[in-house]
Amino acid sequence: MEVVVPFAAERPKTRLEGVLTVEERREFAGAMLADVLTSLDASHHAGDSPRPTVLTTAPVTVDAPVRVDQRPLSDAVNAFLDERTPGPDSPVAVVMSDLALATAESLESLFSTPGDVVVAPGLGGGTNCLVVRHPEFRVDYHGVSYCDHHRAAESVGATVRDVDSRRLAIDVDEPADLAEVLIHGDGPAREWLVGAGFTLSTDGGRVRAVRE
Amino acid sequence: MEVVVPFAAERPKTRLEGVLTVEERREFAGAMLADVLTSLDASHHAGDSPRPTVLTTAPVTVDAPVRVDQRPLSDAVNAFLDERTPGPDSPVAVVMSDLALATAESLESLFSTPGDVVVAPGLGGGTNCLVVRHPEFRVDYHGVSYCDHHRAAESVGATVRDVDSRRLAIDVDEPADLAEVLIHGDGPAREWLVGAGFTLSTDGGRVRAVRE
Repeated sequence: MEVVVPFAAERPKTRLEGVLTVEERREFAGAMLADVLTSLDASHHAGDSPRPTVLTTAPVTVDAPVRVDQRPLSDAVNAFLDERTPGPDSPVAVVMSDLALATAESLESLFSTPGDVVVAPGLGGGTNCLVVRHPEFRVDYHGVSYCDHHRAAESVGATVRDVDSRRLAIDVDEPADLAEVLIHGDGPAREWLVGAGFTLSTDGGRVRAVRE
Repeated sequence: MEVVVPFAAERPKTRLEGVLTVEERREFAGAMLADVLTSLDASHHAGDSPRPTVLTTAPVTVDAPVRVDQRPLSDAVNAFLDERTPGPDSPVAVVMSDLALATAESLESLFSTPGDVVVAPGLGGGTNCLVVRHPEFRVDYHGVSYCDHHRAAESVGATVRDVDSRRLAIDVDEPADLAEVLIHGDGPAREWLVGAGFTLSTDGGRVRAVRE
């Protein structure tokens, strides 16, 4: 399966600006991207597939083929889909670069789910992963993209299925998400947070990540 | 499989007090409990199992057997485990009552996962569901209970496995979680929110639930 991993190289993770500097956000986003690429490479799909393409807004140094496209996310992904013409025998997966908890196993469950369009919903109405096996389906990440992608699939007569995965649902966007990486992560993103001084705080309610 | 569903009847959902009155929180918590019981009844496990027991802090009117225990959550669940002596042939599941997105399918994946202790992690380090097949394992929901339960299992020599389910990971505790119910729910809890005037707001970032 061909996989594309969109990456915002220039202004990554703006909703973490309250807890990380811009340089730290770049480093942390790069660590999460490395986590995702490692899990993709370890998944069964990797055996007979091309390596994932990092679809980035600016050149980045990363252990994967890179395609630079400065357009907004949806336009850049749709341009990729336009070129590939996805179908049952030529699916294209779109996997976000901030899924620091994604594992080979959770990605395999995504890739092995049948359907013209397969969605891994993100928290807050987002779409964290897609598998596209229909030539006419196109993405729109603006707004409640989970609902929009269901409607878009139906509008072109494509069957659509959801994948029920916590690891694929947690995109690391907001300070509360950092605790998830500390608790459940096991790769470069977690190491980066620990190195930056983040620890868990349990002052009632959900656990938070804090640093002195 | 025997299932127990803890329910805080008297002071439910205190972290929603900014958006719901105490009476509304009671109604909404009851609607979520009804969602969970419906999904449990629809799961395959229900065929040859006793009906789930609602383990409540005060008497409630609900379509299931009720056991009243006024002690704190962990003590009440552990008293239940003490009586049952869980084992490979007599497992006990603990399913939280605020899992408004739980479906029969997600619960079946929980029940069918092997292991002396099976954990469905919640957001923020919580433990949303457990399957206990070991006589010595006991719960402690305080703090980062996900980590504590892993340690507790290891300390009694029990194997422990996680279930990767978004639907079982989202316990509805905080205002942000209401959007998940509006987007992904399909039962009484979603109906209650819609009836109470909640709609989705997409003002950037994750979608939120708001009402006028």
